[in-house]
Amino acid sequence: MSKPTGETTPLEPPPSYDDANSQRPAQVPPNASAPVASPRGPPPNRPPFPLQLPALTSLRGKRVILASGSPRRRQLLAQVGLVNLDIVPSSFAENLPKSLSPFEYVLQTATEKILAVYRQEIDNTEKGEPALLIAADTIVVSHAGKILEKPRNEVDHIQMLTMLRDEGMHKVYTAIAVMTPLESAKDPGYALETHVEETMVKFDANVTDDLILAYVKTRDGADKAGGYGIQTAGAILIDRIEGSYDNVVGLPLGQALKLIEKVMMPEDLEEELAPDEDEGLF
Amino acid sequence: MSKPTGETTPLEPPPSYDDANSQRPAQVPPNASAPVASPRGPPPNRPPFPLQLPALTSLRGKRVILASGSPRRRQLLAQVGLVNLDIVPSSFAENLPKSLSPFEYVLQTATEKILAVYRQEIDNTEKGEPALLIAADTIVVSHAGKILEKPRNEVDHIQMLTMLRDEGMHKVYTAIAVMTPLESAKDPGYALETHVEETMVKFDANVTDDLILAYVKTRDGADKAGGYGIQTAGAILIDRIEGSYDNVVGLPLGQALKLIEKVMMPEDLEEELAPDEDEGLF
Repeated sequence: MSKPTGETTPLEPPPSYDDANSQRPAQVPPNASAPVASPRGPPPNRPPFPLQLPALTSLRGKRVILASGSPRRRQLLAQVGLVNLDIVPSSFAENLPKSLSPFEYVLQTATEKILAVYRQEIDNTEKGEPALLIAADTIVVSHAGKILEKPRNEVDHIQMLTMLRDEGMHKVYTAIAVMTPLESAKDPGYALETHVEETMVKFDANVTDDLILAYVKTRDGADKAGGYGIQTAGAILIDRIEGSYDNVVGLPLGQALKLIEKVMMPEDLEEELAPDEDEGLF
Repeated sequence: MSKPTGETTPLEPPPSYDDANSQRPAQVPPNASAPVASPRGPPPNRPPFPLQLPALTSLRGKRVILASGSPRRRQLLAQVGLVNLDIVPSSFAENLPKSLSPFEYVLQTATEKILAVYRQEIDNTEKGEPALLIAADTIVVSHAGKILEKPRNEVDHIQMLTMLRDEGMHKVYTAIAVMTPLESAKDPGYALETHVEETMVKFDANVTDDLILAYVKTRDGADKAGGYGIQTAGAILIDRIEGSYDNVVGLPLGQALKLIEKVMMPEDLEEELAPDEDEGLF
């Protein structure tokens, strides 16, 4: 019996590979309340289906906090379907001593950021306790080991980019912290997992002073540590990277997903971890 | 004398670095006809100023053809302000023999693409002769040297991603071709410049079969050679890259800009090139 147009059943085959683009449903994020839709014949170039991973689907309909105002981090998390995030930038002052190693500096900053937001939001009676918190901090470190801030003015900006070009290579570190509150009597408090990712970035040695000046004038890099955006016009300054690209943008996505799985699905890891190795739970 | 709010003059200082985000004007692409606006106090998070490079500003108000239907390539060119492109996908069949080296295969495909669109559009009386044409072709090559197509079906897709994970690393090649018609009696025809960029991509060896299946089910990679999108959910499969990121997305942006400068500003290169080396001009 032929079915009326528009009706779908669980037995309907998935979209064919010839027309995957034209058969995609509207995106339903794993942390949204609505079930996954599966209509026939939506317009072409719809977004892909959401990623159906247990850790992500367990967040469906729950409050997920991104402790960062960065639109770039929000966009990266949307790539795995984490949308409708509650954006709560941290009030942590980011004033740790620069005498720390880049690794320690960035890790402690991300950890302080997530703890500040956790303390502020854990008893938020209006919005409810969050199911997950995500924080990150990104720093750019010159070849000589100097932690670079956002440029202070146009001259500082030109000098910063000229140095990055002439030094040949530099490094970008992002620390990511992921946390979930724990409710059981056995595990009070929260589970916290962190990771620091390092990527080498090499500017194009053939970038001219004129190109640096033209880029500075766009102001694209004015609000970014290191003075350039790799995902915007700053891309033209870069010859190559070695490591994770997302890390340079501000959030290593694969590592973020692993941390989310660690805190949301700890039972999956019990076979791998002896109790004394389980340092993320306190 | 204080000025009325909203009035601007050429003497007004550029936006300060403290509020670069809130002082940005609406984006005016270098190939648009309108002059660069410089209003006071637009809403925050406006796009950056356009990149003011002679080669780009010389295209202002002119017809620029992107011989590719890829929305990813269009988005990359927008990063340097090349918007309002005339999208004319090439009719070239992309059927060159796979016995060619990856370098030759991708270079010849991009060149055939741009020549097909050039022949079709050079006498387009309705839209006018194009000032610039841009074409590109991207291929994914397995560690064993096999050129990977788009996956044919779900099983093929799973096998392709499993192979990319298990082989450890693979390579992505993009050939870019940039062309401008020449008008002088001395230089009839066109100027054509090409470049092939190679990037190494390493999948995360810890990607599980479950994650591959979950990614395949999103259909994100169904329409992409190699079966993944590095700029979408496919990012979670990737451990690291070595080389240009834009190249993996589909267009190495810095190299594209260099080729545009070569064909649009050939006089800047006359000092560097002896006539017999000037092989791009015929």
